[in-house]
Formats: sequence, C-alpha cells, structure tokens
Amino acid sequence: MKTFMNLNRFEAFSDGVFAIAMTLLVIEIKVPDLSHATASTAINVLIHVAPHIISYITSFLVIGVLWLNHHALFHLLKRVDRIALTINLALLMCIAFIPFPTALIGEYGKLQPIVMFYGLTLSLTGIVYNVLWFYVVRQYLWSHPQANRRFIYQASLWSIGYPIFYLIASLVSLSNITLSTILYILIPLFYLFPSVIDRQLSNLSDEIS
Amino acid sequence: MKTFMNLNRFEAFSDGVFAIAMTLLVIEIKVPDLSHATASTAINVLIHVAPHIISYITSFLVIGVLWLNHHALFHLLKRVDRIALTINLALLMCIAFIPFPTALIGEYGKLQPIVMFYGLTLSLTGIVYNVLWFYVVRQYLWSHPQANRRFIYQASLWSIGYPIFYLIASLVSLSNITLSTILYILIPLFYLFPSVIDRQLSNLSDEIS
Amino acid sequence: MKTFMNLNRFEAFSDGVFAIAMTLLVIEIKVPDLSHATASTAINVLIHVAPHIISYITSFLVIGVLWLNHHALFHLLKRVDRIALTINLALLMCIAFIPFPTALIGEYGKLQPIVMFYGLTLSLTGIVYNVLWFYVVRQYLWSHPQANRRFIYQASLWSIGYPIFYLIASLVSLSNITLSTILYILIPLFYLFPSVIDRQLSNLSDEIS
Amino acid sequence: MKTFMNLNRFEAFSDGVFAIAMTLLVIEIKVPDLSHATASTAINVLIHVAPHIISYITSFLVIGVLWLNHHALFHLLKRVDRIALTINLALLMCIAFIPFPTALIGEYGKLQPIVMFYGLTLSLTGIVYNVLWFYVVRQYLWSHPQANRRFIYQASLWSIGYPIFYLIASLVSLSNITLSTILYILIPLFYLFPSVIDRQLSNLSDEIS
Repeated sequence: MKTFMNLNRFEAFSDGVFAIAMTLLVIEIKVPDLSHATASTAINVLIHVAPHIISYITSFLVIGVLWLNHHALFHLLKRVDRIALTINLALLMCIAFIPFPTALIGEYGKLQPIVMFYGLTLSLTGIVYNVLWFYVVRQYLWSHPQANRRFIYQASLWSIGYPIFYLIASLVSLSNITLSTILYILIPLFYLFPSVIDRQLSNLSDEIS
Repeated sequence: MKTFMNLNRFEAFSDGVFAIAMTLLVIEIKVPDLSHATASTAINVLIHVAPHIISYITSFLVIGVLWLNHHALFHLLKRVDRIALTINLALLMCIAFIPFPTALIGEYGKLQPIVMFYGLTLSLTGIVYNVLWFYVVRQYLWSHPQANRRFIYQASLWSIGYPIFYLIASLVSLSNITLSTILYILIPLFYLFPSVIDRQLSNLSDEIS
Repeated sequence: MKTFMNLNRFEAFSDGVFAIAMTLLVIEIKVPDLSHATASTAINVLIHVAPHIISYITSFLVIGVLWLNHHALFHLLKRVDRIALTINLALLMCIAFIPFPTALIGEYGKLQPIVMFYGLTLSLTGIVYNVLWFYVVRQYLWSHPQANRRFIYQASLWSIGYPIFYLIASLVSLSNITLSTILYILIPLFYLFPSVIDRQLSNLSDEIS
Repeated sequence: MKTFMNLNRFEAFSDGVFAIAMTLLVIEIKVPDLSHATASTAINVLIHVAPHIISYITSFLVIGVLWLNHHALFHLLKRVDRIALTINLALLMCIAFIPFPTALIGEYGKLQPIVMFYGLTLSLTGIVYNVLWFYVVRQYLWSHPQANRRFIYQASLWSIGYPIFYLIASLVSLSNITLSTILYILIPLFYLFPSVIDRQLSNLSDEIS
C-alpha cells in the first residue's frame, strides 16, 4: 500500500469543502418578496421563512457532525493512499451536494418526494462515510494488530447506524411527513451530544501514543 | 476534561467559515435591472444600491470584529474539548447565517420587522459568543489559578455588552428605524477601534509566557 | 531563477480555489418551481433535475482529478518562481470558471454549442495544465539531471492526452451529442482510477529522497 | 507597538478571502435563457456572454495581482499589530466587494456610470492597499534602519501608481467607454508581467536573511 498524500494537506482540503458547504447553505434561503408588504404583513412573510431556517440548522448540524467524525477518523491514520483519497472525494461530493436538498426541503417541505429525497441524500452520504470508515479502520488494524477491538466494534456500530437511521426516517415520510422531518432534526443532535466519538478517538489515540 | 482536537485545525476550520461568510455577503447584492436605463438614469439606480453597500460594510465589520475576538479568545487555550467544539459550531451557525438578514435589511431596510430581525440575529450571535467566552475563560482560570482576574472581569464585561447593545438597538427600531440602523453601524466600529481586546490578549498572553 | 513563494502557502491558496470551485457547483443547480406540484408530479420534476446532478458529478470529478494531479505535480518542486505562479493563476482561472459551463450543460444539455462549449473549456483547462506541467518538469530535470526520464515521458504523455481527449469529445458533439456527453463522464473516471499518477509521484519522490 | 497576531493565521485568513472572492466571480455570470434557442441561435446567445467572461478574466487578474503583492508585502513583517489588521480588514472588504462591480460591468458594460463605478472601486481598493503598504513599510524601516531605501522608493512609486492608473482609466470613460475598458484590462497585465515585485521582494528578503 503506497502512501500518497500528506495528511495535513488532505485534511485542510477536506475541511475547506466542509466549511464551504456549511456556509453556502445560507445562500439557498432566498430573500422573500416584500415589495408590497407593510410593517405588520412583513412579520407574516418572515414566519414563512421559518422552514428554511429549520432546514438550514438541520443541515448545518449534519455537516458539522460529519466533520467532527471525519476528523476523528483520519486521526487514526498517518498517511492517505489513493483508494482512501478516492472514497473521500466521493464523500466530499455528497457533502457539497447537501445545500441542494436543503433548499428543496426548505421551499417544498410539504411534498413527500422532496422530504424523502432529503433523507435519501443523507443516507447515501452516510453509506459513503461507512465505506471510508471501514477502509480506514481495516488499515488501522493492520498497522495496530493489538488495538482494542471492542472500541472499534462499538464505533463501527455507531457508524453503520447513521445511514440506516436516515433511510428509516426517509421511508417514514411515506406515511407521515412531519414525523420524518422531526427525525431528520433529531438524528444529528443524537450524534452530536453523546460523547461516543470522544471516547472512540481518545481511546484509540491513547493506544497510538 | 478530555482534550479533543488540535487547536490549529479547529482555528483553521473556524477561520474558513468566517472568511466565507464575509465574502458571501457580496452575493446578496443583486445586480439591478438597468436594461432600460440610459447613462443618466443609471446613476439613480446605482444610488439605490447604496443601502445594500452600507449593510454589506456593516455586516463585514460585524463578522470581522467577531473573528478578531474569536482569535483572541482561543489564544487562551491550548486544546479544545467537545463542549467547546459544540458551542463553537453553534457560533459558526450564527455567523454563517448573517448574510441572510444582511440581504433582507439591504433590500427592505424601511420595514421595522426586518430591521429588528437583523439586530436580534446579531444579539443571538453575541449570546452564543458569550457562552463560548465564559466556557473558555472558566477553563483558563482552572489551569491558570494565579491569572490576573481584573483583566478577565473587564474583558467579560466587554463581551456581555455586545449582545445587550444589539438587543437595545433592535428594540429602538420599534420607535425609530433610522436610529436603530445607525446604532447597528456604530456598534462594530466601537468594538473595532478601542484596543481593549489587544490589552486583554497581550496581558493574558504575557501571563502565559 | 529566483525563488518567489513558499510552497505551502502557494498550495494552500490553490487548494482553496479548487475546494471552492468544487463546492460552488451545487449553487448552479437551481431549485425547480414546484409551487403547483402534487406529491406525484413532484417526482417528475425531480427527475428533470437529473441532468444537473450528472453534470455536477462530472465536473466535481474533473476538478477533483485536476486537484490530485496538481498536488502530485508540485511535489516535484521545493519552491515556486513567478512564472510558475503566473501559469498557475491562469490554471486557477480556468478551474474557477468550470461552474459556468457546468450550469449551462445541466440546463441545456441538448443544444450542441453548449455541449461543445463544456468540452472546449475543459480542453483549454487541460492545455494550461500542460503548460504548467512542462514548466515544472523542465525545472525538475534541471535540478535532478539523473532523474528517471522514462517515468517523466510516461507521465507527460498522460498529461498531453487529457486536453486532446476533451477536444475529441467536444468535436464528437457535432455528430452525436449523447456520445460526447458520455465521453465527458468517462474521461475523469479514466484519469481517476488507474494509479498512473501514484506511480509517477511515488517513483519521482523515491528518487528525491 | 504591541504584536497582535501570528502572521501565519493572518495570511491564511486573508488568502481565504482572496481565494473565495476570485472563485465567486463566476457565480455572477448568469446562465442565459436558451429555452427557445436552437443549435444555431444558441451560439449567438453564447457570444453575448463574452463581456461577462472578459470582466471575469479582468477581475480575476486584478485580485490575483493584489494577492501576489499582498504576499510580498507581508513577507516584510514578522508580526501584525491591530492597526495593520484593521487596515487589512478594510482591504479585504474592498476585495470581497469586487464581484459586484464585475457583475455590473459584465451585464451593462455600455453604460458610462457602470464603467466608471468599476474603475472607482478598483481605485479605492488601490488606495486602501497603499495605506497598508506605507504602514507596513514604515514599520519595516524602523526595525531595519540600514535597509536599501532605493528599492523601497521604487516599490512605493509602483504602489502609488496603481490607484492613480485606475482613477485615470475610470475618468477616461467620460469621453470613451471602450478605451476605459481596455485600460482596465491592461493595468493588471502591466502589474503581472514586469518582475518588479520579484526584485523588490527578493532584494528586501536578501537583506533580512
């Protein structure tokens, strides 16, 4: 397995795509037409922007959580080979795409296919993330045969759950759009607050050092 | 308290979001329709772009000042734990959102709810900044029990003032929209010129080294 | 030959332009008008977005592959002079332009001049890349007279092929637009999967170290 | 004079704004409406995009040249104080604004006030650049009293010329719009090709080391 790229540059480039995708989300919130609005009707128009703001927050958290995990993941590696680079390119392609389904669900969050499309995009992103995860972990286990496998199994389960949760949430939209949307918001919060990634990272890092 | 992320990468990522949010502000200044304009009428149309340029400058300074403070703040730390990361993610979410109220106030700066919305967004951003500030300072005081607390109290007062000033400025819009807008412009200038942050940083840094 | 700029800063700046251009591609996928759509008609509208998604993926890969090559190329150098900087500026100008023909072909992929324009843009980008390639390689051979020239000839052939393939693919559009579009998608895949760049880089790097 | 910020982070942040502003220029080239176009009429529409592409190239070079100079300038410093930071913030504010007059001149390049507005924006940017230049050079001369002043005088003349050239070019638009536009294109080329900045940098750097 040939080493290919310095980890620092690889991480800086990936971070760039994450940061830009997060910041571009706001561009998709269009300024509503208020040219005929008065002070009192303007409030009603602003309230209609609320779904956009909710989808902005949700997608911001989704990309933020993926960034945190991405960082934890590559801390396991010292160098990146071309296969990891190619899978990572596919992941960045999914990340950079998220502003589009976010704009769609912000504008047409009551249409079932739009709601489902949002969840399927995030599920696909999660699948690509898992491909990267297992590729990196396999390499890590090769170079660290005595690593604590229990932590790796735990973290892998955690990783596999992510696209499955989004798949379920997007299928839920077939019977209940509101519930589906609520699940979309809860999943990144669920992945943000518990300190599983912390433990996973600090435990593995401890073994490295 | 487990350490979580290397400060350099954390700062680079945050800087990215700050820089992108600042640069995206210009995207919200739409090209006016001049297809029926002559050389003489084009000037009048350009003059109507002025409010957009003023809101561009104001928001650019707001984000710039927050960036300077953000930098000063994290200089107090050596490493970032997950709680600081999560609060910082919430702060970046507010920063990356600023182009939207900026576009709104540039376009409809005479509608009171729009003017108030701008101020409330910046006030909320200031509140999240303060949560981060007190979290970081608390950690700093733990690891530096002999730190000069007078400087920290001074800088904290300075920090708390920020969201309060924006809250007041946004409430002023209920009786006087123009005054409210003028206050919005003065607040970042007020935080830019006095060298309080300088002193706060250099004093604390002196104690570190 | 005077040295001009630290390689790290040069690469970071170039990486920034690559990352932003890749992420901006999504902005060109406009949210379709679904205001009169029902759940069942929304799917049809979504299907019409497909060409945009295909052009998004294609251009993302094109820029991604150029980024990988750009990285491999500058690894041959230790410092960058002003001529390399100027050629690189021209290359970044082409890269940053790619979102525009991508938006055009996503929207009007059935119009022959649009299809041809896309290919010609990528061909021109490839030509500028080759100018940079030969400038850098010439310098490398000066400072490493005993370098393995067979690898360099191979890699150069590979480089020259890129704009020629895109030129051919864009000319094909004159008789068959669909075939031309398929070729556009295959070329970056062809340059992504074979590990020629790997070998070229690792071989030359081995000689350096 | 208190030092305020590490030069690396300051440069990385500035580079980010430069890179984003350059890449955002393409966003302002709107996809023309070709929904009723045939293969033959599409070419005519594409030709109408040409002014946008010329203004894209011009502004890309303008920002690129300013970036090269910005880099050369800060190489003279080791650390950045708050005054330099504040002037730099004003410069970045001008840089990040450039996409707007670029979009205007690309769309309405035949209206005299628009052509003049473009030149005045670049002239203002040049003035802010000069303020920064003289602030930095003054500091450099303090800490390097034996520096070769002839080079600094030469480079200063070069710097002062920049906003004056743009001011003249924008005033020329009052009598001849085409000539004014041609001058806008020539000025960055003039500042790109002669290797004055090279000499200035390498000479001063030689004195430092």
